[in-house]
Amino acid sequence: MNNEKIGILIVGLNGATANTTVAGCQLLVKKLAPDYGMITNRSPFRQAQGVEASAGSALEFTERPSRTAFTEHRLIPLDRLVFGGWDVNSQDAYQTAGRHQIIPLNLLQKIKKHLEGIRPMKGVTTSHDAGLFQSQKHLKQTNSLQKKLDLLVSDVINFKKRNDLQKIIIVFLGSSLKPVRPGRIHENIQNFKKAVRRNHPGITSGMLYALAALETNSPFIDFTANNTLEIKALADYARSKNIPLAGQDGKTGQTMIKTALAQLLKIKNFKLTGWYSTNLLGNMDGQILSLPEHGQEKLKDKSGVLAPILGYEDFDHRVDINYYTPRGDNKEAWDNIDFLGWLGQPMSLKINWLGRDSILAGPLVLDLIRLVEYAQRRGRGGLQTQLAFFFKNPLGSKPQGLFEEYRMLEQFLK
Amino acid sequence: MNNEKIGILIVGLNGATANTTVAGCQLLVKKLAPDYGMITNRSPFRQAQGVEASAGSALEFTERPSRTAFTEHRLIPLDRLVFGGWDVNSQDAYQTAGRHQIIPLNLLQKIKKHLEGIRPMKGVTTSHDAGLFQSQKHLKQTNSLQKKLDLLVSDVINFKKRNDLQKIIIVFLGSSLKPVRPGRIHENIQNFKKAVRRNHPGITSGMLYALAALETNSPFIDFTANNTLEIKALADYARSKNIPLAGQDGKTGQTMIKTALAQLLKIKNFKLTGWYSTNLLGNMDGQILSLPEHGQEKLKDKSGVLAPILGYEDFDHRVDINYYTPRGDNKEAWDNIDFLGWLGQPMSLKINWLGRDSILAGPLVLDLIRLVEYAQRRGRGGLQTQLAFFFKNPLGSKPQGLFEEYRMLEQFLK
Amino acid sequence: MNNEKIGILIVGLNGATANTTVAGCQLLVKKLAPDYGMITNRSPFRQAQGVEASAGSALEFTERPSRTAFTEHRLIPLDRLVFGGWDVNSQDAYQTAGRHQIIPLNLLQKIKKHLEGIRPMKGVTTSHDAGLFQSQKHLKQTNSLQKKLDLLVSDVINFKKRNDLQKIIIVFLGSSLKPVRPGRIHENIQNFKKAVRRNHPGITSGMLYALAALETNSPFIDFTANNTLEIKALADYARSKNIPLAGQDGKTGQTMIKTALAQLLKIKNFKLTGWYSTNLLGNMDGQILSLPEHGQEKLKDKSGVLAPILGYEDFDHRVDINYYTPRGDNKEAWDNIDFLGWLGQPMSLKINWLGRDSILAGPLVLDLIRLVEYAQRRGRGGLQTQLAFFFKNPLGSKPQGLFEEYRMLEQFLK
Amino acid sequence: MNNEKIGILIVGLNGATANTTVAGCQLLVKKLAPDYGMITNRSPFRQAQGVEASAGSALEFTERPSRTAFTEHRLIPLDRLVFGGWDVNSQDAYQTAGRHQIIPLNLLQKIKKHLEGIRPMKGVTTSHDAGLFQSQKHLKQTNSLQKKLDLLVSDVINFKKRNDLQKIIIVFLGSSLKPVRPGRIHENIQNFKKAVRRNHPGITSGMLYALAALETNSPFIDFTANNTLEIKALADYARSKNIPLAGQDGKTGQTMIKTALAQLLKIKNFKLTGWYSTNLLGNMDGQILSLPEHGQEKLKDKSGVLAPILGYEDFDHRVDINYYTPRGDNKEAWDNIDFLGWLGQPMSLKINWLGRDSILAGPLVLDLIRLVEYAQRRGRGGLQTQLAFFFKNPLGSKPQGLFEEYRMLEQFLK
Repeated sequence: MNNEKIGILIVGLNGATANTTVAGCQLLVKKLAPDYGMITNRSPFRQAQGVEASAGSALEFTERPSRTAFTEHRLIPLDRLVFGGWDVNSQDAYQTAGRHQIIPLNLLQKIKKHLEGIRPMKGVTTSHDAGLFQSQKHLKQTNSLQKKLDLLVSDVINFKKRNDLQKIIIVFLGSSLKPVRPGRIHENIQNFKKAVRRNHPGITSGMLYALAALETNSPFIDFTANNTLEIKALADYARSKNIPLAGQDGKTGQTMIKTALAQLLKIKNFKLTGWYSTNLLGNMDGQILSLPEHGQEKLKDKSGVLAPILGYEDFDHRVDINYYTPRGDNKEAWDNIDFLGWLGQPMSLKINWLGRDSILAGPLVLDLIRLVEYAQRRGRGGLQTQLAFFFKNPLGSKPQGLFEEYRMLEQFLK
Repeated sequence: MNNEKIGILIVGLNGATANTTVAGCQLLVKKLAPDYGMITNRSPFRQAQGVEASAGSALEFTERPSRTAFTEHRLIPLDRLVFGGWDVNSQDAYQTAGRHQIIPLNLLQKIKKHLEGIRPMKGVTTSHDAGLFQSQKHLKQTNSLQKKLDLLVSDVINFKKRNDLQKIIIVFLGSSLKPVRPGRIHENIQNFKKAVRRNHPGITSGMLYALAALETNSPFIDFTANNTLEIKALADYARSKNIPLAGQDGKTGQTMIKTALAQLLKIKNFKLTGWYSTNLLGNMDGQILSLPEHGQEKLKDKSGVLAPILGYEDFDHRVDINYYTPRGDNKEAWDNIDFLGWLGQPMSLKINWLGRDSILAGPLVLDLIRLVEYAQRRGRGGLQTQLAFFFKNPLGSKPQGLFEEYRMLEQFLK
Repeated sequence: MNNEKIGILIVGLNGATANTTVAGCQLLVKKLAPDYGMITNRSPFRQAQGVEASAGSALEFTERPSRTAFTEHRLIPLDRLVFGGWDVNSQDAYQTAGRHQIIPLNLLQKIKKHLEGIRPMKGVTTSHDAGLFQSQKHLKQTNSLQKKLDLLVSDVINFKKRNDLQKIIIVFLGSSLKPVRPGRIHENIQNFKKAVRRNHPGITSGMLYALAALETNSPFIDFTANNTLEIKALADYARSKNIPLAGQDGKTGQTMIKTALAQLLKIKNFKLTGWYSTNLLGNMDGQILSLPEHGQEKLKDKSGVLAPILGYEDFDHRVDINYYTPRGDNKEAWDNIDFLGWLGQPMSLKINWLGRDSILAGPLVLDLIRLVEYAQRRGRGGLQTQLAFFFKNPLGSKPQGLFEEYRMLEQFLK
Repeated sequence: MNNEKIGILIVGLNGATANTTVAGCQLLVKKLAPDYGMITNRSPFRQAQGVEASAGSALEFTERPSRTAFTEHRLIPLDRLVFGGWDVNSQDAYQTAGRHQIIPLNLLQKIKKHLEGIRPMKGVTTSHDAGLFQSQKHLKQTNSLQKKLDLLVSDVINFKKRNDLQKIIIVFLGSSLKPVRPGRIHENIQNFKKAVRRNHPGITSGMLYALAALETNSPFIDFTANNTLEIKALADYARSKNIPLAGQDGKTGQTMIKTALAQLLKIKNFKLTGWYSTNLLGNMDGQILSLPEHGQEKLKDKSGVLAPILGYEDFDHRVDINYYTPRGDNKEAWDNIDFLGWLGQPMSLKINWLGRDSILAGPLVLDLIRLVEYAQRRGRGGLQTQLAFFFKNPLGSKPQGLFEEYRMLEQFLK
């Protein structure tokens, strides 16, 4: 197993998060940047790689061997990942990184050749994609859903063969889709496949990518708020084939902090009375989420985390997302938290978060890939409930507080 | 054991925290206010009381029986606590509460009679107390340290006899003292007692109260930043007599949040580069802490929590405490946290905390009393390291992050 | 003129702002509370009252004579104002103040008798009022707009006669109405009156109150965001009768600060790129504004202030209003301001405003009453453009920056 | 006069502010960057340059003629300024800019040749300079104050001659000095010069530079908090020779905002009860100011602005400056403002300022140079009181609020 590589096919390869993930991974492999914000390189996850844990990771990026041996008990090294994917935009990864301006130019130049070699395959859309994407040119030229599916399946098979890969993992980093209300066609895989054949309007591009994954025995990770993996037909199909699924909606910034602070309120026995959260984003993600239909799943995920952690619901919880151009890919949040302390006296906590969207998401995507690959090797298919730590809406589980979720993850790796 | 009561003697009985603790405990006993912010009434600590856990505690204050039976496996009910103590101010607890204006007047009126019955004994000071306190009238009238100690010991014995109590716990909520550099006299109890007899200038009022506790076999809790329990002579003496000690410096607001967020940085593998914390307080505590000599132990405790949790020290950590009269007993903090994320990209988090000093501290004092009483019944003397959750500078242990410390506490009660 | 009194009839007399204005005025007359936040008691406006200016106003409330003489060159003393008005709620002003809990109870008790004597007349609504108000009982019992108007006119005449008043000023502090798109019926007073007679659906309750004012030669102040005074028929009619009108949308908190900071950006030549403003309100005003149709005029007023002050429009400006119950009448705002400095370098300023809605509005209402009364005595009818300082959307003028608007107001009084 | 140039000699030429001023001026002359944050290019100051005012300045940097004609009624064009100065560091301006990393590299490269031509002369220090500076090598090699003075005077004369300049203006941007308590030697110029000759310890390097300015008839601008121009001997000497002086302590960020908001409190008649200001700086300026002796003049200037504007002093005002390395040249401030509104109800405003030190200071330095040059041409010597807008501690005047100070400046140019 020692020299095997696996393929990572990303839906939305030229988006800010995907591109940062791809370039960042290469910077780590080449030891050109530190891996802060990524947890699978450190204790206790690091032991799973057969490497001694070290306290600080600041200097590690100059010290690690470039082609680590690994056995079945360890997480896969980053230098075994081969990236590709689909996008409606045809630029290569270097051009794309230059456009996003997230990673400093001096770093990008050092991996220019590598990035120029990564170029997306043509994507697919359906009527649930934002109009903006449906009108792009870098798309499979067919209106038949079945045809789109078949082309995606061929893409996976060809990518695997061409790169001599042991397996493929598909990661959905596409844009927010208009949500579909689950109906009969989503109840089982037979109905679902029939609906694809009949060009049914209840099929989204996300579902096509997920089905292409399952048909090729590839684990599927949904890092977005789309309800793709909530479709019973797909979840059941994966379980029956024992293919890992993980989702949904990566917990990167405001909600990550929120699930930590909610657990704080809980263990301190403070009574929450109100939590107001607002977000400023200036990137493409912000633009799409500002379209009411496309933002609603995200708002639902963001709003749903508090009650399960706290164990009660009698509080005001409001979440706003604003498209605000001066921020670019930087993400700002302001939270106001009101709670009661002893003898019912009110207090409050206000938080201003100045984060970076893709810089927060990138390492989580790599962590997820490694943990899902590990789960598959261990024979664990279906919804990966032990990965709740990473998601706003952890499928098959529910939010339990960031520290509790971290403890669950530790247990899994023991 | 079923009808026994225990005495709680508080040093600084008329201070804001002590007075709020005393009045608040009675409000809880009478079911007149909710117990938010207090953890020993809820799961998993509640089970230790033989009562079913309930998710929300909002309405509990109307439901609990007033004179709970308890056995040796349970935490002591609040209605078994009889409060008294020492202060340089002679007002009764009702007058004192009216002066502090922390608990609303309409609540205070309902327990007026009870509070009027609680009046402090005369206190003791030494040259390490702030000048302001040394000049008060409600003080033991002697310059002999030995005489002061003897009077404190008599106070404890008489209070216990007069109120027919099974035992006494002493809680230090006095003001910040000028710190003493430990020397030969502090090394063992023989030297220490000799120094008391010789009126040595290295003995503080805090040490006299602690010694009075040990001489009467009473557990001693130091909720302040004073280094009383860091004196080897006292810690060793307690261990040899198997008397519980707990301290030091109650973790109420900014530092409580800080130890939660530091653990967040740690599990997320973010690299801290700077943490700036400033505090605004307008109460007596703030006034004394603004005196440089009296503030330094507190600043040391506040500054010392990050490195043990994070495992590295290469960051800027600055903590300011400001006496600012518009705040009164309300406590405001502003924290600016700078850290590096993936690929070394900087991000930051800013926190504005609008808390209430005594409302935060009161329930912790009651929690500590119950947990120390329980430890003593279980035969656990010396430094109570399992109580790190409650302290900025947990003696015998070190800061490990709020959630980790909570987990330790859970283990202890299992 | 020396002993004359004037009547102030407030629409929405039992709302938080109106009630606070009425009670607060009496507290000032009785010298029971300070007049901070009110400008007409201090220099340069104070001179207009024939009283020496004094630097601090902190102690003034114990020093002023209770029945000041005034001549035609001076602003009217507060003890000459007699309050009444309309509301859909029938409580007296004391009950109402107890419900709102804005003014401390110990102050209210000192003016209890006075407040118990103030009770609203029955109000009127139309289909543009929030459903919540249309279903109240304390309403004129008729569906005829003309009948409603006639009853309001009678109310004014009777109030004036009954209280022996020299004149009446009507202040609109009613709730936010669904906006009406101006049409033919709003173009001139003939059409408008005909529409009233025909029960036309384009007539709002605000317009009826305004017309009742004009028919009784009473100045009309609109402190709300409703577009009542933007109706050409009404504005022209007032001008033709030389009756003062002032509006609209009192500039109390966030927008007041915004127009000050916008002027700062302007004189410092910083280039604004984005301004995000969010509001948390927990009172009735917040509840009504959270209804989309009822909030839109307010959002328009809040959004419209920047471009006229700055002289350009190429920036992102977003304003949110959230109904958030933990706040009650307290109003919180968070603003994030992004701008470019020298050489195009970005900087930002973030503001967290913790205000009190009615405490901010009350003194402005009294200032406006005095300045409008003064204008009328000086023969200045129609839109009072010199009062831009007080309004988000100053009718007949446009926002020019708070300090510039203050300078205009000073000029007017010279 | 049409082709004349003037020399600007800066003390501390390689500091962040001076270097940014020099490079930024060249970027403006070459129309490579916008002039936001600078006021003398816009109305009403622009008219003084014989150029039509324009609303937005965003695009101006591509449109202005490079070599503007100007007459005696106009402000001097930027392309007439020739920069030089002194520093204890010998790098050229290009190397220095690369080290400071304030102006983006791509902009610096376009003016590389120009910047490489600007290199400081050797500086002078005395025992009041921070030890760090006294030990540098790029210093005049003499211990005689008179010799240092003579060398500085020669530097001025030679620079003027060498560059064929019409006159010289000296700008002090050196570091914070230990303050000198004014004594007999500072009372008149005779005593002062005698003290220089006798190597008196009461003479600072700032005073030597100022005296060198006066001896060469050069206006002197002190942008720092040092009390150089408060020395009576120097101020009187300048007045007697009719040489303009301007100072002190440039009002760039937090204090600039503070003097605007204080004027807001004043015109709104809110009663200030407390203002807490803290600053985070990571540059050399922050490092020196963190030395207690070197920070005290700055703290005095920052603390002194409120009472003169408000007209009362009964409020808590605290100002902290913290050296905090994660910020670099970026400057962060947090202000908490407490005030009373109507009926004595408390409210507060909190401000988080994310500025850039040198980017804020640079344009003010250029504005001051132009306005001082203009004053000199108009025959106005001595302290330039009309420039209060620019200074925390405006010499010969006192803080009056930013908008009031702006109005004074407008009057001066009319």
